[in-house]
Amino acid sequence: MQQQKGHPWRLERWVLPQHTDHAGVMWHGSYLAWLEEARVEALRQAGLAYSELSTRGLELPVVGLQIQYRQALLHGDLVQVESRVQPQQGVKLPWSSRFIKSDGSVAAEAQVELVLVDLSAGPDKRRLLRRAPEDLHNAIQRLIEGP
Amino acid sequence: MQQQKGHPWRLERWVLPQHTDHAGVMWHGSYLAWLEEARVEALRQAGLAYSELSTRGLELPVVGLQIQYRQALLHGDLVQVESRVQPQQGVKLPWSSRFIKSDGSVAAEAQVELVLVDLSAGPDKRRLLRRAPEDLHNAIQRLIEGP
Amino acid sequence: MQQQKGHPWRLERWVLPQHTDHAGVMWHGSYLAWLEEARVEALRQAGLAYSELSTRGLELPVVGLQIQYRQALLHGDLVQVESRVQPQQGVKLPWSSRFIKSDGSVAAEAQVELVLVDLSAGPDKRRLLRRAPEDLHNAIQRLIEGP
Amino acid sequence: MQQQKGHPWRLERWVLPQHTDHAGVMWHGSYLAWLEEARVEALRQAGLAYSELSTRGLELPVVGLQIQYRQALLHGDLVQVESRVQPQQGVKLPWSSRFIKSDGSVAAEAQVELVLVDLSAGPDKRRLLRRAPEDLHNAIQRLIEGP
Repeated sequence: MQQQKGHPWRLERWVLPQHTDHAGVMWHGSYLAWLEEARVEALRQAGLAYSELSTRGLELPVVGLQIQYRQALLHGDLVQVESRVQPQQGVKLPWSSRFIKSDGSVAAEAQVELVLVDLSAGPDKRRLLRRAPEDLHNAIQRLIEGP
Repeated sequence: MQQQKGHPWRLERWVLPQHTDHAGVMWHGSYLAWLEEARVEALRQAGLAYSELSTRGLELPVVGLQIQYRQALLHGDLVQVESRVQPQQGVKLPWSSRFIKSDGSVAAEAQVELVLVDLSAGPDKRRLLRRAPEDLHNAIQRLIEGP
Repeated sequence: MQQQKGHPWRLERWVLPQHTDHAGVMWHGSYLAWLEEARVEALRQAGLAYSELSTRGLELPVVGLQIQYRQALLHGDLVQVESRVQPQQGVKLPWSSRFIKSDGSVAAEAQVELVLVDLSAGPDKRRLLRRAPEDLHNAIQRLIEGP
Repeated sequence: MQQQKGHPWRLERWVLPQHTDHAGVMWHGSYLAWLEEARVEALRQAGLAYSELSTRGLELPVVGLQIQYRQALLHGDLVQVESRVQPQQGVKLPWSSRFIKSDGSVAAEAQVELVLVDLSAGPDKRRLLRRAPEDLHNAIQRLIEGP
């Protein structure tokens, strides 16, 4: 989990009560919501609304996920989620992300693998696609290269 | 992710609207809630209420997480979460889990690593513990050995 | 919020870390997940899988919601969600629920209003239905009358 | 639910996959997360970090909640959450909010009632406070009066 290559895309969020648990720290599952938000936001900034893909029956489901939690995030912390799109590996689109505290330290690292599927025949009949349509391909290229 | 050793503990849950997303399948983040529920329930059946540990300032935070999603879970599916506690690895307590559909196929596999910490000095001052207190140690032994 | 008429349907759940917030109590939004689970479970016990309705393009969206939180629910609490279906009011199907602690006291009360819609033309084109199909009508009658 | 008096505070958010359910619309429970985020953000803009209060053992739990859902919010919608603090009613601090779609129509309206409690003696021993400390009082005044 050390791929720091590629251009970083940033999302900034505060740790709110809804993210924390009784121990006063961000619940480990809440990180996934920010990872998704960072991906959708990065795609949007690269010119592609994810909901646009959905309208055409295309989805980018998560097929693999790995997180290492290094330090707790506390209620009220301001966090940068820094995401980098990695080059496609076969049918997999890997994203690597880091959760960075305001003192610059890394609180967590995540690797997420997406695939592209066609769901137009129904949620139980997903068809794996090997080639992205042009708008998605271009958005991913822009994400890899940076602005 | 193929450690099928050890005694399996089971939690059965239905996929509800709250778990799904617009694509009609269980959202990838919802799996973490069931994994936690399965762990807390297994500990309870082994004689230990997790909230009891919390009262004493002890917590079992997740420090590592890996999931491979193999098939989508659909709205209305009945799912077995089958969890196995693995032998302690240094300070880490690994759990390995599978999400099993009613046709017996494996929808997802997960590896979660916990550590034991003492939070009595505050959420930002967690102290890693190398030895579990007796009740937790015994519960984990019972989980490994089975009923 | 005092309609205690009708037959009560019960769901029992433990307050888990995922439900709590930094203040050590159940986060106010987590109650909605249990209310939904209780409704889906009651319908199932009355013979109707909610996902079955969805397959036919029918949904029961929440159009109104009211909760009064009287006492906090704590990490590790065992809670009974007691739900009663109220007689239909125009197009609205009201459910009234109580969250009951193990000492018998009421921690919260909720009123939820559902309507029946047909979504087969798409999520943005929902058509309000005044009459329930026979299986839903029968299930609601059984919920009102009790077993 | 028609209190449109007072100065509006705005939070803008996109409907993401994590907010939606199988019906392709925002799940009714997801609205509560945005309501909380809007409150915390408004307080911050008025000079008070909510987590600061928590550090001193003070919390603002929700004791009453009412939502009317008028139109569905769809995956990819851009939504303005517009919140207004209402004058204190006894010990209750009411906030009234609207979810506004990009065409200007109101998708939902919400009323949330908070109280101020002191939790320093533990989550199960909350003490209701009738008077806000000076920083909270001032922040609420600024929220009512606007910038």
